[in-house]
Amino acid sequence: MQIVIALFDRFTALDAVGPHQVLHHLPDAEVIFAAERVRGITDESGTLTLQSQASYADVPRPDIIVVPGGPGQAAQMTPGPLQDWLIEADKTSTWTTSVCTGALVLAAAGLLTGRAATTYWLAMEELGRLGAVPKRERYVFDGKYVTGAGVSAGIDMALALAGRVAGDEEAKRIQLAIEYDPHPPYQSGSPATASPETVAPFVARSRFARV
Amino acid sequence: MQIVIALFDRFTALDAVGPHQVLHHLPDAEVIFAAERVRGITDESGTLTLQSQASYADVPRPDIIVVPGGPGQAAQMTPGPLQDWLIEADKTSTWTTSVCTGALVLAAAGLLTGRAATTYWLAMEELGRLGAVPKRERYVFDGKYVTGAGVSAGIDMALALAGRVAGDEEAKRIQLAIEYDPHPPYQSGSPATASPETVAPFVARSRFARV
Repeated sequence: MQIVIALFDRFTALDAVGPHQVLHHLPDAEVIFAAERVRGITDESGTLTLQSQASYADVPRPDIIVVPGGPGQAAQMTPGPLQDWLIEADKTSTWTTSVCTGALVLAAAGLLTGRAATTYWLAMEELGRLGAVPKRERYVFDGKYVTGAGVSAGIDMALALAGRVAGDEEAKRIQLAIEYDPHPPYQSGSPATASPETVAPFVARSRFARV
Repeated sequence: MQIVIALFDRFTALDAVGPHQVLHHLPDAEVIFAAERVRGITDESGTLTLQSQASYADVPRPDIIVVPGGPGQAAQMTPGPLQDWLIEADKTSTWTTSVCTGALVLAAAGLLTGRAATTYWLAMEELGRLGAVPKRERYVFDGKYVTGAGVSAGIDMALALAGRVAGDEEAKRIQLAIEYDPHPPYQSGSPATASPETVAPFVARSRFARV
């Protein structure tokens, strides 16, 4: 089972590494980080560089596609290597998935039109403008399309996907392997639980604000 | 504020990337992945390679030290570049931290002797044998030493640390930035919540079992 995680400049590292940490534990998983060419890809912070092991051309028919988000997603929404690959690879994939604003990349490729989907909390309206039906959920399944909310939601999304792919028992085994028993020290992880004072500055400077 | 995350062959990627995703958002954070020399370091799965940006010699006095775990931790517990660096860097660090079996590396360096600490659930006894006082908690603060439980616990640990370093409001802001509002699809993330059938095979084949 080939699982390809797409990388691009200024991606959000946890969007990609959360699902990787879950999915590489699946039986018979072959996980490959791919980019437009084989090179180191640096994240949004400029301080983390992940090596891609394949070009998109090397992996035309993955079983599972994972597209992370991050500020670099904006540059991946117009015709180019990632969009071209996605549109073709999606024709034969078993699952096409995203984390965070990776959903916008899928939507730009026309893959989420009319489908229920989720994304980073600040990008929900943008997802709707791109033709999807936005849902404020941690992850959303619609047919073979699976979208996760922001950043850390890739772990939840991938565990749910692992359950569909390999069964609940296997997914539970993976959850224990990564000791995923979250205890956040604060309750500030969504706009519904964070204080208005915490939320407001994000909204004010959001790159998704309609101008 | 210099934050150095140590890398070594066969580390667990989420142990390192979880804290990175949190800590790089801290004001004035300079996050550096370091290893015995500058090169790509491949994780436990053999499918994820993170680039180190510095050798240990390049970063003798970090403010915050983060040591991840993973199967490769066993090779880091005897005298060598990581142990030598840790012992020296710890003398001037503000915080010395670990995720998962990274606590065993700190303990082997003598840094946790008599201190409360936590680690991966299967390694708690080993941590005690190395002189620490094991606590079954998600993360443990004992003076400047902060240890997280297994793998995904690095996110919780780092958020709690962010609160100590920069205040609760800053940590809450980071939690919202990474939309850390976890909703695991299963309740199998600790030996206390997983079924006996899920737990038993881990214990039976644990590399920490006393023989």
